[in-house]
Amino acid sequence: MGSERSYQMKVVTGEFGYVLQDVPHFSDYIPDLPTYPNPLRSNPAYSVVKQYFVDMDDSVPEKIVVHKDTPRGVHFRRAGPRQKVYFPSDEVHACIVTCGGLCPGLNTVIREIVHSLDYMYGVNKVLGIDGGYRGFYAKNTITLTPKIVNDIHKRGGTILGTSRGGHDTLKIVDSIQDRGINQVYIIGGDGTLKGAAVIYEEIRKRGLKVAVAGIPKTIDNDIPVIDRSFGFDTAVEEAQRAINAAHVEAESAENGIGVVKLMGRYSGFIAMHATLASRDVDCCLIPESPFYLEGKGGLFEYMEKRLKENGHMVIVIAEGAAQELLTAKNEEDASGNKLLQDVGLWISQKIKEHFAKQNKIPITLKYIDPTYMIRAIPSNASDNVYCTLLAQSAVHGAMAGYTGFTSGLVNGRHTCIPFNRITEKQNKVVITDRMWARLLSSTNQPSFLKVNKLTGENSGTNFKVTDLLGCLSFGQ
Amino acid sequence: MGSERSYQMKVVTGEFGYVLQDVPHFSDYIPDLPTYPNPLRSNPAYSVVKQYFVDMDDSVPEKIVVHKDTPRGVHFRRAGPRQKVYFPSDEVHACIVTCGGLCPGLNTVIREIVHSLDYMYGVNKVLGIDGGYRGFYAKNTITLTPKIVNDIHKRGGTILGTSRGGHDTLKIVDSIQDRGINQVYIIGGDGTLKGAAVIYEEIRKRGLKVAVAGIPKTIDNDIPVIDRSFGFDTAVEEAQRAINAAHVEAESAENGIGVVKLMGRYSGFIAMHATLASRDVDCCLIPESPFYLEGKGGLFEYMEKRLKENGHMVIVIAEGAAQELLTAKNEEDASGNKLLQDVGLWISQKIKEHFAKQNKIPITLKYIDPTYMIRAIPSNASDNVYCTLLAQSAVHGAMAGYTGFTSGLVNGRHTCIPFNRITEKQNKVVITDRMWARLLSSTNQPSFLKVNKLTGENSGTNFKVTDLLGCLSFGQ
Amino acid sequence: MGSERSYQMKVVTGEFGYVLQDVPHFSDYIPDLPTYPNPLRSNPAYSVVKQYFVDMDDSVPEKIVVHKDTPRGVHFRRAGPRQKVYFPSDEVHACIVTCGGLCPGLNTVIREIVHSLDYMYGVNKVLGIDGGYRGFYAKNTITLTPKIVNDIHKRGGTILGTSRGGHDTLKIVDSIQDRGINQVYIIGGDGTLKGAAVIYEEIRKRGLKVAVAGIPKTIDNDIPVIDRSFGFDTAVEEAQRAINAAHVEAESAENGIGVVKLMGRYSGFIAMHATLASRDVDCCLIPESPFYLEGKGGLFEYMEKRLKENGHMVIVIAEGAAQELLTAKNEEDASGNKLLQDVGLWISQKIKEHFAKQNKIPITLKYIDPTYMIRAIPSNASDNVYCTLLAQSAVHGAMAGYTGFTSGLVNGRHTCIPFNRITEKQNKVVITDRMWARLLSSTNQPSFLKVNKLTGENSGTNFKVTDLLGCLSFGQ
Amino acid sequence: MGSERSYQMKVVTGEFGYVLQDVPHFSDYIPDLPTYPNPLRSNPAYSVVKQYFVDMDDSVPEKIVVHKDTPRGVHFRRAGPRQKVYFPSDEVHACIVTCGGLCPGLNTVIREIVHSLDYMYGVNKVLGIDGGYRGFYAKNTITLTPKIVNDIHKRGGTILGTSRGGHDTLKIVDSIQDRGINQVYIIGGDGTLKGAAVIYEEIRKRGLKVAVAGIPKTIDNDIPVIDRSFGFDTAVEEAQRAINAAHVEAESAENGIGVVKLMGRYSGFIAMHATLASRDVDCCLIPESPFYLEGKGGLFEYMEKRLKENGHMVIVIAEGAAQELLTAKNEEDASGNKLLQDVGLWISQKIKEHFAKQNKIPITLKYIDPTYMIRAIPSNASDNVYCTLLAQSAVHGAMAGYTGFTSGLVNGRHTCIPFNRITEKQNKVVITDRMWARLLSSTNQPSFLKVNKLTGENSGTNFKVTDLLGCLSFGQ
Repeated sequence: MGSERSYQMKVVTGEFGYVLQDVPHFSDYIPDLPTYPNPLRSNPAYSVVKQYFVDMDDSVPEKIVVHKDTPRGVHFRRAGPRQKVYFPSDEVHACIVTCGGLCPGLNTVIREIVHSLDYMYGVNKVLGIDGGYRGFYAKNTITLTPKIVNDIHKRGGTILGTSRGGHDTLKIVDSIQDRGINQVYIIGGDGTLKGAAVIYEEIRKRGLKVAVAGIPKTIDNDIPVIDRSFGFDTAVEEAQRAINAAHVEAESAENGIGVVKLMGRYSGFIAMHATLASRDVDCCLIPESPFYLEGKGGLFEYMEKRLKENGHMVIVIAEGAAQELLTAKNEEDASGNKLLQDVGLWISQKIKEHFAKQNKIPITLKYIDPTYMIRAIPSNASDNVYCTLLAQSAVHGAMAGYTGFTSGLVNGRHTCIPFNRITEKQNKVVITDRMWARLLSSTNQPSFLKVNKLTGENSGTNFKVTDLLGCLSFGQ
Repeated sequence: MGSERSYQMKVVTGEFGYVLQDVPHFSDYIPDLPTYPNPLRSNPAYSVVKQYFVDMDDSVPEKIVVHKDTPRGVHFRRAGPRQKVYFPSDEVHACIVTCGGLCPGLNTVIREIVHSLDYMYGVNKVLGIDGGYRGFYAKNTITLTPKIVNDIHKRGGTILGTSRGGHDTLKIVDSIQDRGINQVYIIGGDGTLKGAAVIYEEIRKRGLKVAVAGIPKTIDNDIPVIDRSFGFDTAVEEAQRAINAAHVEAESAENGIGVVKLMGRYSGFIAMHATLASRDVDCCLIPESPFYLEGKGGLFEYMEKRLKENGHMVIVIAEGAAQELLTAKNEEDASGNKLLQDVGLWISQKIKEHFAKQNKIPITLKYIDPTYMIRAIPSNASDNVYCTLLAQSAVHGAMAGYTGFTSGLVNGRHTCIPFNRITEKQNKVVITDRMWARLLSSTNQPSFLKVNKLTGENSGTNFKVTDLLGCLSFGQ
Repeated sequence: MGSERSYQMKVVTGEFGYVLQDVPHFSDYIPDLPTYPNPLRSNPAYSVVKQYFVDMDDSVPEKIVVHKDTPRGVHFRRAGPRQKVYFPSDEVHACIVTCGGLCPGLNTVIREIVHSLDYMYGVNKVLGIDGGYRGFYAKNTITLTPKIVNDIHKRGGTILGTSRGGHDTLKIVDSIQDRGINQVYIIGGDGTLKGAAVIYEEIRKRGLKVAVAGIPKTIDNDIPVIDRSFGFDTAVEEAQRAINAAHVEAESAENGIGVVKLMGRYSGFIAMHATLASRDVDCCLIPESPFYLEGKGGLFEYMEKRLKENGHMVIVIAEGAAQELLTAKNEEDASGNKLLQDVGLWISQKIKEHFAKQNKIPITLKYIDPTYMIRAIPSNASDNVYCTLLAQSAVHGAMAGYTGFTSGLVNGRHTCIPFNRITEKQNKVVITDRMWARLLSSTNQPSFLKVNKLTGENSGTNFKVTDLLGCLSFGQ
Repeated sequence: MGSERSYQMKVVTGEFGYVLQDVPHFSDYIPDLPTYPNPLRSNPAYSVVKQYFVDMDDSVPEKIVVHKDTPRGVHFRRAGPRQKVYFPSDEVHACIVTCGGLCPGLNTVIREIVHSLDYMYGVNKVLGIDGGYRGFYAKNTITLTPKIVNDIHKRGGTILGTSRGGHDTLKIVDSIQDRGINQVYIIGGDGTLKGAAVIYEEIRKRGLKVAVAGIPKTIDNDIPVIDRSFGFDTAVEEAQRAINAAHVEAESAENGIGVVKLMGRYSGFIAMHATLASRDVDCCLIPESPFYLEGKGGLFEYMEKRLKENGHMVIVIAEGAAQELLTAKNEEDASGNKLLQDVGLWISQKIKEHFAKQNKIPITLKYIDPTYMIRAIPSNASDNVYCTLLAQSAVHGAMAGYTGFTSGLVNGRHTCIPFNRITEKQNKVVITDRMWARLLSSTNQPSFLKVNKLTGENSGTNFKVTDLLGCLSFGQ
């Protein structure tokens, strides 16, 4: 418990290989804290339901595809209300901050934190931090009440505003201390949660009774451990519009080619799921699966074949795909042409050049970039329910004295996950796994894997077999 | 293996309380069957992915909220392709039938069975049975090819047609035998799958090498064991329109009351999830939670309170709610008034009568029944992906010689589940559990539970504590 | 100017048969009123556009299908800003009231009246009357500012609330006088505008300088003279969902019949346009075209034919259709069964009984009533623009001293129409006209007209040939 | 009748300034043609409706904002069925071609031409020309039957395919003659209809009895005379999504700027209507209103003001806006940078550079180009009805022996318009007119007109006062 690492999670072991990767708690570093009965015990909605409170020993396994003799492996603490809480309601002073890019559902999470604190725990001091991390020290705060946030889940974006960067640990913790805030809810992605982990560590060093709870946000679904990130479902749904449009444009022209760029800086989940859901896509290109344009087994060869067979085709490309090709190009030219950084424009240009050079097939290419139209919509019903439960789990955890954790869905159960498990790596599409094989089978596109890659080792992605079991979601 | 029961599942046990409830296999009753290498092994999309094939020992636990010392409990066989199959491609003659009410995603399941059989396994003899079970013996069949089904997932309904009833085991098995069909895919609900189990047993009695695979379909989500039924997500999403409309109508009138009837004959899942997703609902009434109209703690008292506070309110009622009140009423009157069987019309009438009698609050009530508008839409992106994987799992299972099973999602993993586990009881909202408590907390409606029910026993639903862990889904 | 009638409109005649049916003006009954330069003259947006101001002599013909020698006929005053206004900005005290049923676009009209008064004319005293006419004397008012109404056009319903009835001329005019209101904007249908006409007459009798301006609202499109009512477009669009659902349900069942009830108490415009837009409807039944069920040329005969040919069919019925059949039924039974008043439930029951009696064709009937789901949605883009211009026209007219008028679109031009022309009769589908013939041709349904009706006289609708030219819209 | 010009229209004059600009007819150049009774006279749907047939003298005025003493002016022939036709049904051999870019409603027009020919006139020989004009001589044709086209209106794009260019008069007319085609339906924009006019003239020169009918198609609404082009309504509706997204992105960032590029190469109608419908737009830039970036009254000055006031803003820019700035820039740099040709990318870059240089306001800019997502959707209900009537009018006209015309909506009535009136100039937003003033007033953006432009003369657009009356639509 002395090392930085031990700040991040507490490991408990048990029989038959059982491991619990538990989250930090006030009692780890503040002795003799008083506890209080959970106000939910007198709430009519809950009081009739003894089983409502989560058992202190409930945990959820990370890996659930098992053999008869597989050891039980890593588990996470189940989220939910506890019989005892570490704050009296009138002493809680919470704040909420949203960081990074937009994602459907942000406003639902904000709304539900405010509502849960008020309706479940009788907490009515909640501040909104304006415009991301820098709002802690550079801006005024926004008072959040159940009434103010009542309808915000019907709008896209975040009513708190957001920004990138601006993380300054000392200034932020000073601000938290100065304002007397004792619950900090941070909604953001990979970088934001790394920042949250550092804020939590500084607070722990100062010995403050301040809970730091994260809600992982990434439209790309690139956060590990959890089943899926909120807003992902909505994004895949909305992406269908762009794919449909590309399909119609391609079908209506001779040798029509529709190119759709979708989000996914490092992970191709949106592209992959949108492709599987649509069934009108002929080729899906993602960061995890390096590809090449020219020559045998390359993209152009495949395109020529599809155009001959079908007369049109649709390509979906994740924004982070082909970065190694883009970089190479940049080095050669030393031109720093920013345009090339947009992979959708780049590949559209490359395709046009190829077919112009060839002079055999006169193509018509239409390029669609729906990124901001997808990010900015309100969350759908499924994501609304999901955001509600994520927010409630974070509130239950903070009230129960847990800190340094994110709430997250693991195998369909809500859990508390230590920050380090969420930030240690990125979730990626495993291209030697079944979901990607399903996609390849659905599009009939080439695998772009050379023969010597058949061993299962692929230069672009360092994966281990365990990844196959642990980091997949959506119906493995 | 002598009893009827042993036809239904094979139990395997292991260390630390491990139990596998395995599905039947041809080899259980036909000796010395030849096997063949899986054609996927030479498919370029799969050949690079050694890990694509499911390990024979892979299983998925039913219960995953565990303690350090909890025994491992029941597991199901993981679905997916096997290294060996029990049919050469050119000998497969498959058929597909859809039974019961419409549900978003039916056409996607049909499409994906046809595509999976063709593109993955090279099978091109697939028949569609027209109009449900009776289509086996009373109608012509429909030839299904990948081209014919290519765009059907963009339409609601089922291209095969559907009907209720018509199950005649001997006629159906005779027809299967006469036509030389050896893979039967049956898409339907509770009753349909009971029928499928009987068909499987008759086939087994006759010693036929015919695989019977089910895909559970129920818009109400009332099938046990599985996480959720396909189309449920789409239905909850579409229900938001009706709730929004009811909310607008209620808000625009003085003491406006919007009543929305949603599907749910025995289970209130759609009503519950639609309510949680919307947040504009003041009261959600479901079959599992008996309620009363008059007196203290009753619905009318609550309505008067809400109207005074807010000036309007929205009620969501599942079609199967309040059946005990409706029956009682019928007995008293002996009128046999069919109108009263529609719980939405019934409760609207009751509310109008109450407030007319009272003469204190002049209400305006608008009743919306969106049932058929919800059932008939195409599945959304999320359900499209889900239906695809359900269909693929069924095909992989049948090709691998399994029979008498349904494919189903258990804790986010695709599995093969014995028929008897799917049909033995109905999945219900557990009203003493957390999800319902969340709903109560969100709407602030009364629990309608009398004091003597506080023990956790409720007359309307016989639940046990184990239900709390086993039969819940969507983020426990 | 002595008779009540002359209160309602001023007739001006000109060469070649030109007739202007002009609207009343303050100067008709108040002598020597001062005028002021229109504030728009110093607005940068308008000041550059000399042509912005409407010429005092601009008028728009009612009838525009003409022959070489047709006299010019009736014209209306063109709406728009005038060089001079009759109110200084700081003396205007406006109020807005919405009456009757919901209709998409109500909030847009409210928003645009407030914005036009403020941004164009510098008027910032605007009251909202709560809950329809009775709000004038029985309720508190709502202060309306540009900021408060800024986003309301994205919501359905009316933020002012609405109700039926409650019209009490003296109380209302007293309230107007007491509050010092001098511009009254009334949004409502036939009955509401008749009430507005009476209010205007009372105000005129009292010699008050109070402008009364109406904006005609009717989702049924049953208001004469104008091209279409606002919200109609949105309603027809939204009705497609219900028709699509009915079509899918019908197609998926053997002898499936989908019945959709649409709005239209006295006029079948929504049913007719929704049918023409959809093309999946086999029969459209409207109030203007009486039909019969049994016998040759009747509905049942046609249904049997369609089911034999197609296996399924879709019927759209306007809520006011078949009232003569419903009434007859009531008289026979003297049962007063309210259920039968819903023509959708009634016809569904009749169809079921017929086919049950026949026992030849086992049908599956699904009935959909999307009424409140259509009424409650926000207006679409086209209706948003339309509502904006209607509101602006009303404001321009009131500022210019006109009163006792509605704004309205006539042949695509915004005009001021005397109340009596709007309320004197209802707009109806002319069943001997081309639009209805187009529909008949599109559905192939029987005309239900007996031979002796071939003269063009139909008992259900008293129409004259002139109606054919005057009261049609949408592409004659 | 000797000059080319006289081929294009026949002028008839009458009393009080009446002018009919009539369309050509077979009888103009082929003597003694036999006529036949219209088959509609025996169609049950029409036979009851004597008034169904259009009077030979019916005409519709082009200009309908009139004074008491205004001469009657230009009229067009009213479209619709005639008592006599010039083709027996079994001799008709029709073809349909679609040219140019996609537009919502193309498939509806195709469907309705086929259905009208078959159901109304008993014509069943209809060919689809594949891929635009060049399909006449370079490709196979597609047989079109009512069944084949039955559901195509639910899809975007055109089932016939389309292309630009490929017009070769002689080859096309040879192909028409060789195939024995005698009715040619051409759906396309400005350029396409100019081509159609030449085809008609060549056919006339050859003395062929071949009707050439156009249906004007332009998503930009830049075709003169007609009220609006089909698909425009759908496009404006769909554009709302992009504007909403831009608004959400802008609101969620500090000094967030959302830029949306909409269609409109020479005319800003979509941008103007989308702005008026949305009400979230702060600045709308169109080709007709030249603007400048720097200095007093320029765009940047206005942006700085809005950002200070509001913290965010949304800009809508039509694709053809600012071309004079883009050209100037190109000449200076001689860089030929293709990127700059996209005005949306160009202005986004300019704005970023300006605020980076300024270094006072750190902006976040999001650029959305929804063009292909708008073009490719199916038409909405309103456009579906409109397309139906346009197609019917073209068919009625061709059957009645008219040629060299387009069908078109004029002041809400369907008419036949001579080609030369449709192609002689482009419809443009008149920036000194009321609709634009309304927009300026709604956004509060600067007029970008210098003081010396106050006369009403603006260098960018040569308009006359008459334009104000004649070429406006949508509720002037």
